[in-house]
Parts: sequence; structure tokens; C-alpha cells
Amino acid sequence: MKKIANLSLLILGVTFLSGQAKEDSVQFKRISTEILNNGKGYHELKELTKGIGNRLSGSEAYEKSVQWAAQKLRDAGADKVWLQEVMIPVWIRGKESLHIKTSGGNWKNIKMLSLGNSEGTGGKDVSGEIIMVKSLEEYDKLPAERVKNKIVFFNYPFNQEHVQTFIAYREAGAYRRTAASLTAKKGGKFAIIRSLSSAFDDVPHTGNMRYDENISKIPAITIGNTSADELEAILKTQQVTAKLNSNCGMKGEKSSHSVIGEITGKKDQSVIVVGGHLDSWDVGEGAHDDGAGIVQSIEVIRTFKKLGLQNNHTIRAVCFANEENGTKGGKQYGKVAKENNEKHLFAIESDAGGFSPRGISLEMDDPQRKQIQSWGNLFLPYGVYNFEGKYSGSDIAPLHEMGVPAAELVPDPQRYFDIHHTAEDTFEKVNRRELLLGSTVMTQLIYMIDKNW
Amino acid sequence: MKKIANLSLLILGVTFLSGQAKEDSVQFKRISTEILNNGKGYHELKELTKGIGNRLSGSEAYEKSVQWAAQKLRDAGADKVWLQEVMIPVWIRGKESLHIKTSGGNWKNIKMLSLGNSEGTGGKDVSGEIIMVKSLEEYDKLPAERVKNKIVFFNYPFNQEHVQTFIAYREAGAYRRTAASLTAKKGGKFAIIRSLSSAFDDVPHTGNMRYDENISKIPAITIGNTSADELEAILKTQQVTAKLNSNCGMKGEKSSHSVIGEITGKKDQSVIVVGGHLDSWDVGEGAHDDGAGIVQSIEVIRTFKKLGLQNNHTIRAVCFANEENGTKGGKQYGKVAKENNEKHLFAIESDAGGFSPRGISLEMDDPQRKQIQSWGNLFLPYGVYNFEGKYSGSDIAPLHEMGVPAAELVPDPQRYFDIHHTAEDTFEKVNRRELLLGSTVMTQLIYMIDKNW
Repeated sequence: MKKIANLSLLILGVTFLSGQAKEDSVQFKRISTEILNNGKGYHELKELTKGIGNRLSGSEAYEKSVQWAAQKLRDAGADKVWLQEVMIPVWIRGKESLHIKTSGGNWKNIKMLSLGNSEGTGGKDVSGEIIMVKSLEEYDKLPAERVKNKIVFFNYPFNQEHVQTFIAYREAGAYRRTAASLTAKKGGKFAIIRSLSSAFDDVPHTGNMRYDENISKIPAITIGNTSADELEAILKTQQVTAKLNSNCGMKGEKSSHSVIGEITGKKDQSVIVVGGHLDSWDVGEGAHDDGAGIVQSIEVIRTFKKLGLQNNHTIRAVCFANEENGTKGGKQYGKVAKENNEKHLFAIESDAGGFSPRGISLEMDDPQRKQIQSWGNLFLPYGVYNFEGKYSGSDIAPLHEMGVPAAELVPDPQRYFDIHHTAEDTFEKVNRRELLLGSTVMTQLIYMIDKNW
Repeated sequence: MKKIANLSLLILGVTFLSGQAKEDSVQFKRISTEILNNGKGYHELKELTKGIGNRLSGSEAYEKSVQWAAQKLRDAGADKVWLQEVMIPVWIRGKESLHIKTSGGNWKNIKMLSLGNSEGTGGKDVSGEIIMVKSLEEYDKLPAERVKNKIVFFNYPFNQEHVQTFIAYREAGAYRRTAASLTAKKGGKFAIIRSLSSAFDDVPHTGNMRYDENISKIPAITIGNTSADELEAILKTQQVTAKLNSNCGMKGEKSSHSVIGEITGKKDQSVIVVGGHLDSWDVGEGAHDDGAGIVQSIEVIRTFKKLGLQNNHTIRAVCFANEENGTKGGKQYGKVAKENNEKHLFAIESDAGGFSPRGISLEMDDPQRKQIQSWGNLFLPYGVYNFEGKYSGSDIAPLHEMGVPAAELVPDPQRYFDIHHTAEDTFEKVNRRELLLGSTVMTQLIYMIDKNW
């Protein structure tokens, strides 16, 4: 294509502004120009993903990433950088395999992942007949004797028809979280869950699960969409036996750290937080989830320093520990903030992928929400138009519970659940410009909050 | 991440609608549900890109794609499918290579592509000293004796700071189009252009160039960004000789075809056009440019038929021939429409990549423009908010010149110029959901136009 692009979008939101708004739009453009031209986030993401790789809580790689993040915050010009100690759960995957066979057939290996925090089979083969259900409602109706000693395949598909993929993710989330205990309650041996995946491929998506108290801790595993399709097809006409062998399980807890860097406020010490989580699942590289949020948060610090934006309040980038299988980093941060009587003005998280930003979700009282929405025209030239969401991120939930206005960056959601929590969440899936636009929008928002609150 | 997504975006644009608008929003949702669940575009794009591959005008592959597109339009349920003959220019790349060396150094091979429609060196080595300019202004000031017998390296970088990448593309476009004739006018031997690329890699981006009349037709070639960076660095301290050997050139013209399929109007025969271009450059697979536009246009036909949306007017999908190096298909379509006195109500093109849609650009009179903008709330749940653009596509420009209101789908522009016109424009770079949302929005718009115009 070779048409002439028009300029209207670029000047939109500037044309009808005057006075203060014009001044703000000039600062917005300075921020975007600095980041799109000189942003370090993409290069830093390459270091984090290719140099360190995935970094589950408790792993050696996670500890390396702690040192790395502290150094990057120093390089970005933070006035103060420190580690915040937090006790985190340790979960180890170990070896794992799933085989299936029809009666008279041969064992066939199926690509799988144990769900995070699941117990394994202790290295022994556990096998049984598979029964399939399409929904929790269908499972609820099954009598216990139909489940006893069986393997339950929860074959609930990711609903492609939602434009907002997070809705489909939420709907399917109950299966991942509850399948194991539901199966155990009726005497089943283990649970297989169709991955929470928008891709038509054979990539299994891990993620956190949890056990109900006083219920036997049986394994929960996940398989990719095409394996699930095949299994579904076979089960329509034949009996299928599954055999699982896995070593995963919880290995107590240990001391680890979140990483914090800040630029001291010129006027007061009240705090504006921007953050993401430094840990990732133990497959892939944790690039979109959530290396992106980490390097974007560091970029905010770098940009404030580089442009000499004299911040009234303290701006703090927080690289939270252990979001994926415990959110202990976020909880500890909230606890320490309370103990120290720190005043927090605002917190924003980036944990929905490093894609092109479309909005900012606002979890706060109406007056603050309306004030941020009134700045909407300033953001429009940067592709950000949606301020309707009312949620924020899980790591800043403890702050929000203490009354702190909280927000989350809303990137385009179409590609996220193709690669979320998988071996495919790699640096190559992140686009430089999309990532940097996310940093841009967060810096712009923090600039406005710092100036006006 | 595992937060709870909120529903507000989904219901936005529905909540405050009533009566007719509510009915329309129900049809919008039917269209989106059908396409996101059952859309064939992604699978068809795989057939086109992997089965046929790139398809430059005049190539055997292009002729295969003509037959393929006709069949897909029949499969989609078009009432009538035909080929429209058009004479197209034939350009052949052939073998090509570029080497550079410093005085005393060895020849080093540089990745390059001849620009489309450029003449080559006739298979002979052409060599000379490279001189570098950063801008056309700088080149204009060079006296002819400084250029005579030299190779001119137009080292103008793609401007990363534009959020709207099409603006950067347009700014850099003059170099690609004019470098050869500018160089020839001052007696240079050939021109090297830094690629029109937003990626920091060594992938050269081809694209169309043109010769001024009565000026010697010397070769124009392009190199990737990292090769350009290296060349720039060496030229700061050393003299560099370049040697080009290429066989490309125009080989007359031949008869070819655009492909057209339509659903007959129930009320009248006035025509609504949706289209893209079937040809591509001769590298990569022409996936985003513009296989995406082709399969999206076919999807519009399929969806109208599948959902039984009784169209008042004729809805016509046009797969234009020869957009890349001649736009002969678009011109011929306009000519035939005029000759046959066909009334065209509206035309929309998709030729900016199969990315997540953000808007619709409207090139038409104000009343029509305002009417479409008044439907904006209906599109918001599908991520489409920007109706500010005032351009349309190059293949429907002849229709627009005849007074037909014209439009273009506006997808997210961040990734396009990483891969545009390169070996990297492959099926793998296209996301299923993003592609299908583009088809969805075009179908929705055509539904509204058909009903209201």
C-alpha cells in the first residue's frame, strides 16, 4: 500500500486544547519522542528474556533477575534503589509426562504441563480411564461413582467470540483453579484441563491452581487445544486410558526480594507507584508476562530523569516478586507501606502484555476517575481512548484495599492468550514500538498525576 | 496476570442505545460472533501465502492466485464471480548482488533488494565510490561534479517518533520514488536507499520507484537498517566503493485479471465495493500486504450469505490486480464501471495490514462522513474509535475521483513497517483474531451503509 497517511489523528486532541492543556500536550509529545527514539525498554527486555530467561519464584534465575533489575534502576537514574525482602512459596516442576491409549492401542505421548502449585504423582505412574465434561455444570451432575478412580478431562473451550479476550480468560479460569479439588472430592485420580488459550495450536498454557482445604491434593495438568480436540474426538467413540508421571510439588518457602527504585519528590515524599512483576512461569521467557511491565516501569524512571521532569512527589518503580504463584511481593509491599505509614497517592501496574496501548483502567473513587477521564483528549494521539475499565492489577490490590487509587495499562488484548503462560511467551513476540508506547502512556499519566494531585 | 476483566467495554455503546441502534448493535454482535467463531479468512490466508506464496503481477503465482480467489468467492456464496481483464506491466527481479569495500579491504556482500520497476545493470558489474547524503535538501546542494560517476547513498532514516507510522512512511517515501532519477540527473551511476523500515534489523524493504521522463534509467536499490548503519559508520572515516550486479527490469506488459464476486442486491443493482489487492511484491508471502485485505473482503461476502443479511444493494468484493507496481487493476475497475454506467454507492479498501482495527478513514463529503461518524458508538465494543482520517485506498481512488464515497480500514499501525514489502511479510506475522476483527468491522460498516444509503 502506498496511500498518503493523514495527519488528523496526530493533531487530534491538540487542536481544541488551550492554555494548560496545550502545555501538557507539549510535555506528552516530549515524553513520547524521547521514548520512541531513545527508549531502552526493548533492549532491556532482550537482556532479561534472552540473558536470564524464565524466572519462577525461588529459582536461581529469579535471583539473577533481582540483581539485574536493581542495576537497571540505578542505570535509569533512580535516586534510591533497594530490595524488599519477602517470603515466597517454592514450587518445582521436575519431570512430567502424559500418555494416552485406546483399548488395544499403543501409548501415545501428549504434550502437557502441570499447573502451577499442583502436586505431582511422586514420580510414579498414575493411570485410569478418562471421562470428559464440557462444563462445571455437567461435572456437578456426575455422581461420585462415575468419577471414582477416573481421570476427569475438563474440556471447556476458550470462548473466541468475546472481543475482550480477558472475559474469555476469566470464564475459563474457574476450570484451571478448581478442577483438581473438584475431581478429588468425587474420588478421581487427577484432572486434565483444556488450556486457557485463544490459539489453535498444541501449546499447553500453565498457570496457578489451588487446593481446597481438607481435600486430597491430586494433580492437575493442562493440554493444548489441538490435543484437546483430538482427545475429544476419540472419546466420542472409544474408551481412553491416561497415564501421568510427574514430580512437581511445593517445596516450602524461602526468602526472596522485590526490587524498588525511586526518584525523590521535590515537594513531598508521598508516593506514586508504577510496577509489574519480575517473576514469570517456568516455561518460555516471561516476555509479555511480565517482562514488558518491568522494563516499562524502569522506562518511566529513566524518562523522568532524562527529560528533567521535576516530580513533586516520589515516583517509585516496583518490580514485584512472586505474582504468578502467590502474589507475595504485592502483599508484602502493601504491608510494609502500612507499617511505615507511607502515603501513596496512586499506583499503576502493567501486566496485560507489551501490546499497543488502548486504554487505562481506573479502580478508584468517581471524582478521581472523572478527573483522569477529563485528560482523555491528551492521550488520543497515542491511541489511548478507553478509560472505562474499573479494575487494576493484582500486585497493587493490597494498596488499593488501603484506599490508594489504582490503575492498569490496557493494551490490545487480541494476541495475549495465544502465548500467555507458555513456552511461546518469548522476546520475539514483543514488538518494539508497541512496548515503548506502553511506557509512553504510563509516563504521561504519571506526569499528569504528579502535577495535579 | 490473573485479574478480573471488567465488562464495561463490552457493553459500552450498547447501554445507551435504544430502538434502531439496539437492533443494529444486535446485528453487529451477530456478525462478530459469526466471524470470530467461524471465520475462514485465517485459513484462507494460509492457503494463499503458504500454498501460492508471493505473487507479483505477471508471475505464474499471480495467475494461480486469480483462480484461487475466484474459487474462494464461489465457496463464500457469491451469486456471481468473474475475472476482469487488465493489461499489467511486467517487472522481473532476476539475480542481484551488492558488494562494498574500503580501500585496501576485501569485497563484502551486503543484503539488498532492487526497488520495484527499477532497471538493473544488465548483468554487468557497475562500481564506483559511494557518497552519502542524509536528506534530499543535502543532495540538492551537491554540485553535479561531486555526484558524477558516483553511487549516491540516500541515508534518510524512518522517523520513529511518529506514533502514526504511515506519516514516517510517507516522509521517507520520496527517497524511494525519486532517488534514481535525482542521481541520474547529476551523472551518478546508481542509488542506494536506506529501507523505509521501522525495524532495527537487516531486512531490505522493496517497493515501487519511478523514473522521470527523459532521464537515464539507472538502478535504485535498498538496504536494511543495520547495513545502512554500518555503511554510515564506515563512510565517516573511510572511502567506500560499491559494486552492483543485477538483472532486473521491465519486460513489457501482458494481459492479467482482477477477480470480482458479488451478492446481488434485493432492491437495486447499485454497488458497494469491498476490496484489497491480490498481487504482492516478489519477496515474502504478501500476508499483511495484502493477503489480509483479500481474505477479509471474501469474508464479508461469506458472512452476508451465512447470516442471511438481505442486502438491498449489490455487495461486491474486488481482488485488485497490480496494486504494487502500477495500480492498473484499480484503474481498470474504475474505467469499466464508468463505461457500464454502474452506480457505486460506496467503496472500502483494506490495505494497511491485518492488524487489530482501530478506525475507519472516510474520504467523502461531510454529510456522509458525519452520518458514518454518528454510528461510532456501535463500533466501540469492537475497538474501533477513530473516524478522523480523510483518505482511502489507492485501488479505489479512481472510483472516488468519479464521486464515490470511499473509505479504508485503519488497523493498528505499529508493526506494519517492520515487515512491509519484505521477505518477513509471512503468514506467521498475522494473528487470527486481529485479522478476523478487521473482517468483522468491514462487514458491520457495509451492513450499515447497505441499510441506510
